[in-house]
Amino acid sequence: MWKVVWATLLLLATVCAQRGYAKETKGAPKVGHVSVVIVGGTGDLAKKYLWQGFFHLYANQVSSGYSFSFYGGGLSPNDKATPILFEALKGVVCPRELSVERCALVKEQFLKLADYWQLKTSEDYQALGKHLTEQLTQEGIVEAGRLFYLSVPAFAYADIAERINNSCRPTDGAWLRVVLEKPFGHDFSSAQLLSTQLGTSLKDEEMYRIDHYLGKQVVSKILPFRRENSKHLDPIWNKHHIERVEIVLKETLDARGRIPFYDQYGVIRDVIQNHLTEVMTLLTMGLPANLSDVKEVLRNKLKIFSALQHLDRNCATIGQYQNYNLEVQEELNKTKEYYSLTPTFAGIMVHIDIAQYEKMPIILTSGKMLDERLGYARILFKNDIFCVQSHSSVHCKPKQIVFYFGHGTLQYPAILVSKNLFKPDLMDTEWKEITEHKDVSVLGMPISDYYVLTPTVQREAYAELILHIFQGRKDSFISTENLLASWGFWTPLLHGLAKTSPRLYPGGADNGNMLDFKLLGREVTFANEAVVMITQDHMGGSGTESFQVMQGKYRSAEMVSAWPEELIVRLAADLQASAEKAVREGGRFHLALSGGSSPLALFQRLARHHYSFPWRDTHVWMVDERCVPLTELDSNFRTLHDHLLQHVKMPYFNIHPMPVQMNQRLCVEEDSGALLYERDINQLVNASSFHFVLLGVGYDGHTASLFPGSKLDAHGDSLVALTESPAKPHQRMSLTLRAINQAQKVGVLVMGKSKHELVTQLSRVKDNPNKWPITAIRPTSGRLVWYIDYDALLG
Amino acid sequence: MWKVVWATLLLLATVCAQRGYAKETKGAPKVGHVSVVIVGGTGDLAKKYLWQGFFHLYANQVSSGYSFSFYGGGLSPNDKATPILFEALKGVVCPRELSVERCALVKEQFLKLADYWQLKTSEDYQALGKHLTEQLTQEGIVEAGRLFYLSVPAFAYADIAERINNSCRPTDGAWLRVVLEKPFGHDFSSAQLLSTQLGTSLKDEEMYRIDHYLGKQVVSKILPFRRENSKHLDPIWNKHHIERVEIVLKETLDARGRIPFYDQYGVIRDVIQNHLTEVMTLLTMGLPANLSDVKEVLRNKLKIFSALQHLDRNCATIGQYQNYNLEVQEELNKTKEYYSLTPTFAGIMVHIDIAQYEKMPIILTSGKMLDERLGYARILFKNDIFCVQSHSSVHCKPKQIVFYFGHGTLQYPAILVSKNLFKPDLMDTEWKEITEHKDVSVLGMPISDYYVLTPTVQREAYAELILHIFQGRKDSFISTENLLASWGFWTPLLHGLAKTSPRLYPGGADNGNMLDFKLLGREVTFANEAVVMITQDHMGGSGTESFQVMQGKYRSAEMVSAWPEELIVRLAADLQASAEKAVREGGRFHLALSGGSSPLALFQRLARHHYSFPWRDTHVWMVDERCVPLTELDSNFRTLHDHLLQHVKMPYFNIHPMPVQMNQRLCVEEDSGALLYERDINQLVNASSFHFVLLGVGYDGHTASLFPGSKLDAHGDSLVALTESPAKPHQRMSLTLRAINQAQKVGVLVMGKSKHELVTQLSRVKDNPNKWPITAIRPTSGRLVWYIDYDALLG
Repeated sequence: MWKVVWATLLLLATVCAQRGYAKETKGAPKVGHVSVVIVGGTGDLAKKYLWQGFFHLYANQVSSGYSFSFYGGGLSPNDKATPILFEALKGVVCPRELSVERCALVKEQFLKLADYWQLKTSEDYQALGKHLTEQLTQEGIVEAGRLFYLSVPAFAYADIAERINNSCRPTDGAWLRVVLEKPFGHDFSSAQLLSTQLGTSLKDEEMYRIDHYLGKQVVSKILPFRRENSKHLDPIWNKHHIERVEIVLKETLDARGRIPFYDQYGVIRDVIQNHLTEVMTLLTMGLPANLSDVKEVLRNKLKIFSALQHLDRNCATIGQYQNYNLEVQEELNKTKEYYSLTPTFAGIMVHIDIAQYEKMPIILTSGKMLDERLGYARILFKNDIFCVQSHSSVHCKPKQIVFYFGHGTLQYPAILVSKNLFKPDLMDTEWKEITEHKDVSVLGMPISDYYVLTPTVQREAYAELILHIFQGRKDSFISTENLLASWGFWTPLLHGLAKTSPRLYPGGADNGNMLDFKLLGREVTFANEAVVMITQDHMGGSGTESFQVMQGKYRSAEMVSAWPEELIVRLAADLQASAEKAVREGGRFHLALSGGSSPLALFQRLARHHYSFPWRDTHVWMVDERCVPLTELDSNFRTLHDHLLQHVKMPYFNIHPMPVQMNQRLCVEEDSGALLYERDINQLVNASSFHFVLLGVGYDGHTASLFPGSKLDAHGDSLVALTESPAKPHQRMSLTLRAINQAQKVGVLVMGKSKHELVTQLSRVKDNPNKWPITAIRPTSGRLVWYIDYDALLG
Repeated sequence: MWKVVWATLLLLATVCAQRGYAKETKGAPKVGHVSVVIVGGTGDLAKKYLWQGFFHLYANQVSSGYSFSFYGGGLSPNDKATPILFEALKGVVCPRELSVERCALVKEQFLKLADYWQLKTSEDYQALGKHLTEQLTQEGIVEAGRLFYLSVPAFAYADIAERINNSCRPTDGAWLRVVLEKPFGHDFSSAQLLSTQLGTSLKDEEMYRIDHYLGKQVVSKILPFRRENSKHLDPIWNKHHIERVEIVLKETLDARGRIPFYDQYGVIRDVIQNHLTEVMTLLTMGLPANLSDVKEVLRNKLKIFSALQHLDRNCATIGQYQNYNLEVQEELNKTKEYYSLTPTFAGIMVHIDIAQYEKMPIILTSGKMLDERLGYARILFKNDIFCVQSHSSVHCKPKQIVFYFGHGTLQYPAILVSKNLFKPDLMDTEWKEITEHKDVSVLGMPISDYYVLTPTVQREAYAELILHIFQGRKDSFISTENLLASWGFWTPLLHGLAKTSPRLYPGGADNGNMLDFKLLGREVTFANEAVVMITQDHMGGSGTESFQVMQGKYRSAEMVSAWPEELIVRLAADLQASAEKAVREGGRFHLALSGGSSPLALFQRLARHHYSFPWRDTHVWMVDERCVPLTELDSNFRTLHDHLLQHVKMPYFNIHPMPVQMNQRLCVEEDSGALLYERDINQLVNASSFHFVLLGVGYDGHTASLFPGSKLDAHGDSLVALTESPAKPHQRMSLTLRAINQAQKVGVLVMGKSKHELVTQLSRVKDNPNKWPITAIRPTSGRLVWYIDYDALLG
């Protein structure tokens, strides 16, 4: 400990003359001694960025009243690791503002304050904890806090956190900060598990999850920039003005040497789930009243996460550079038959389902082995000018704001605003406008067409974040909620892509335009024909995953079968064909829809892909309804509303929920809700014959809300009846057999492996409406078509 | 007549050897003699295009069995006009396919068949009619038809038509075709008047209204091109793929010499109402199953007209070239104080309110004294490709289809399709693909980036149309319905712009970008700050047409007053502010709206301009309702639905029509509809206090459906009641005074001159609810604001 005191005193002597000694003021953080431990202190990251960052911290803070000691921790014994550590420490460079003499002095002290400490066993941590405390006591120094930077593989986090908790907690009143590097899990459940594990040892406020992107000067300027320019941005920061948002991180490197890690993660987990997603939330979140209010920032971020539209594999294109698999075979000792499906490139389209951004494409894309190293976020605005004459004038050019993270043609971090957009306000001395620059082109426009802002002094992301950790500024770190929200968003896509073959690309300039992708409604596909794809044959797959739709017979009626997605595509197309025919012939299409989970995908497909569906002339009726208020989440109508009706332009009068709630009560016989619905049908539907009735079938063979054992005959000539379900809520309203069987077309949709047994059983049984109500569906003069997916049909 | 026979025989002699004599077949048009009369046959148009066109017709048809005679008619006496006519006739040139020898021969005959005929008085027409018939009889020739081409000012149409009808009708079984040149009226009512006048003399099928744009080869190819390429176009010919449509006609000439005509018309009437509008309908109409089915084409065109969104003056920008006014002063003998507001430039944005094109901007623009002569229609598609690497590759460039009418850099008519869009199919030998072309740029892209189609043989529009007239092909002409539909669409804008000052522009390249315009939602404005504008001062105007909003007191409550448009803008803004406040504070906004015509403009403004209105959290209630089914056009809810609800994304559950129809009957006391509505209010609206209630006031002082003389006290504590109106339908449902007065804010909207007397009266009377129900509106703890426009306030 003598080293600490000595170095501090020495420096203070040279500093106190210049500034007043920083006194501890009430409410300010406690000034005192800070012990920094980098676990993994001789690793690559530490060598490249961390020691440098802590050295900057030291140089900045040494005259502020704090004293420091630094420990590089590692698994190796002292004699082996100490020289390696000091080799790294000697490489640190001073901040520019320091004179050469002072630099030499500060660096000398820094080296004296640093030491190696073996951290392998619990005992090692106990010894370190004991040492840290003893030193404080011996020297009679007040402790400010302890900072552990875990620069180790994630699987070790839980153990180390436990050891820190057991043996290395600081003295009373001092803080503990434990810094973690990604990956924070592999998907939602592993992230949750890790969080729970860490939570047993560390308090939430003690954990600092680093996303070094948040330390990049341009990224951390996004919110302040939006605030400073809100008078320009408020009117245009919405779907009406923004054409699209692109968040792009291009790398030229491959994954060689990191394969054991990388092959488990791939590009989405490696950089998209974290870096690019964080940038996306910063660009789209509601501006907090107070930018440094960590809670408000988090709350607004979470709002974005909760409004993100569910991604399925049609929202992404993935690629893999050609040599990757060879590297995998080598580094993981795999045979030549082994094929990894890990993507090294992804292009993804995200939508945010809030009015401000509805249908506005947000593109997240990243890849290894691309043509250039470049990171940026671009907000491209719609072209709203019609140029009558001067097409070359600046105001006829694209309007965009580019957050340029670095590298690429520009080589420095910058925010660029097209001159035809607005002149950005600059209220921050840490940024300046550049007016003289070399003549480069940035995203298709000469730099002279932009206003260019850049930081006055460039700072390294790690240095920046280490300073924030020291200052306890949690807004630059990933909170547990944020992390889980992000994994919650990405996990379904990752699972959906797990068996998808990436397109192979040669790497570098040779990629040409083979990775370019096309946005089609909600979907993304590569723009050019496939060249090489890892095929199912390579994978030894069964080849069943073709896109074929099979037609056949089931229970002596028509059957259409396919993989789930294709089945829905087909059913939606059939519905549209029916609708168009009905509208052509009679001006209206009467469609009765069922509840349940299977039609969800259908509703979404109709809402997102069937632009030309004649909604204006379509009337939607319910096949059945639960006796709950229509606004309840388990109401069939509510599901239909949220997934379909809300997204298409259908007149209010064409929507026919069942009147399950009348006179403030639910499904009471005397209120005659069923009769009312029947009357509406009689009045509006020609011959009370729906054009299309879509049914499902339950495990017990029920359809609509017609359950086994109930007396279906008792409905007589009614079209609508109150019924009883064995499952809650028991009370139901349902179309009767008569109403269904007099329809012009009835479709029965059956999906999922769990229905396989039922499908098998039903294929064998005779008509027995009392036991299997579905077998009573025999449209009198219409068609019956079974839509059964392969999972349900083949098991 | 000897000339006719002689020339025909002579030509037949040389032709019959080559092709068989065209025999008259059953159902085919009657072969025989055709008399062509160009009234105005020595005028500019006749000299420049018409005689040339008829000569082509003659050259094409002379060997088909028809014989011809041609008359140039005019006001001048024969001796003066005959040399002028023959001077013009001598200038005609042969179609390319004719050999030099044959050309000389055909031309010689043509000259022999032509003659001048003075057509000034009724007697002149009688003489002509007599002459035509006599000639036929003398020569014993069968008459095929008579073609009168009226190349005279429009005011003369009705008289000439009458004279033709009286004296020049052809012999039995032969056709009469009378060709008219624009202008066909000046606005809807003058066009209607002219149609009626002409209708007394001519049958509809006898009138051929020429729009020479329809004779342009590229224009007449639009429908066939759409058909031939429907497999490529069908999926993309909609709002989801089209960024915008531009229909542009740029001229370099000024209006000098034509001012007496032009100053009454201006650019919209001169070329936009007709040429550009026709192109727009051809681009957007539903493709008829049979392209040559005139009725189906017309029906589909009319569907577009009926779906065009109403234009107001915010949908257009207008300009006038700087010298124009000087020319007006000179040519119309006006003083130096005279200022013409006639626009010589207009940029207009049109929307079609059908699902396929909803919100897709269609730009129509034309002007004189611009930088180049150029006519085109461009369909610009959305950029749906994200280019990861090769930004210069063709598929990252704009995707567009250009119908290039002629002139400009290309100098020949063509259809151009970006190569990254599709390769057009060509199923027509009259068109060919050009692959070798000089290196020019067409609308921002090098020509090599397009597939280029061009007619095999270029034909002049007039020649083409004259052939169509001869063939009786009415699809290339403007039917009465089409004409009136077009005027019906343009007239409100023309009236709206009547007092609007055009921006002055210098003309030619000097215009720079001062005419460029910006599309903002539904509005269009010049993109740059105004430079020079003809001001109201120039006009000696009263200066009252300012945009000021006045605030004051009325009946001791707040009052906001302004010109109608500004008042609506203000009310809409106030509503949005209330909504945002309510949602911020309590998560929901409860708004009660009235029927009547005044709120229509408000609904439209909210639907079109208030993108960020929190609709999702807004509940809409009715202030009152007529006891008619909600789908009836006079239902208040129906109006609200069609003008507002249908256009915003509001959950179904948030929409609260009054239950005027229950148990298939209207407003029956026992059905307790009023009670039901009251219960809904009690259940959903906090303290049953609406955030905003918007009222109107009737001439009799009624508000909501609370009428003078009705016992308002009788409603007691009810929030909703059945009431009686003195006007039909008598039965109403209405919020009661209690419901209204416990609202947090009540706005009363009063608009129009016809309300001035009422406003004056109300300003004087004391509260007297029985006589003036509106005076009972005194929100207990809320605010009352009167929104009264200047017309109602000042008369």
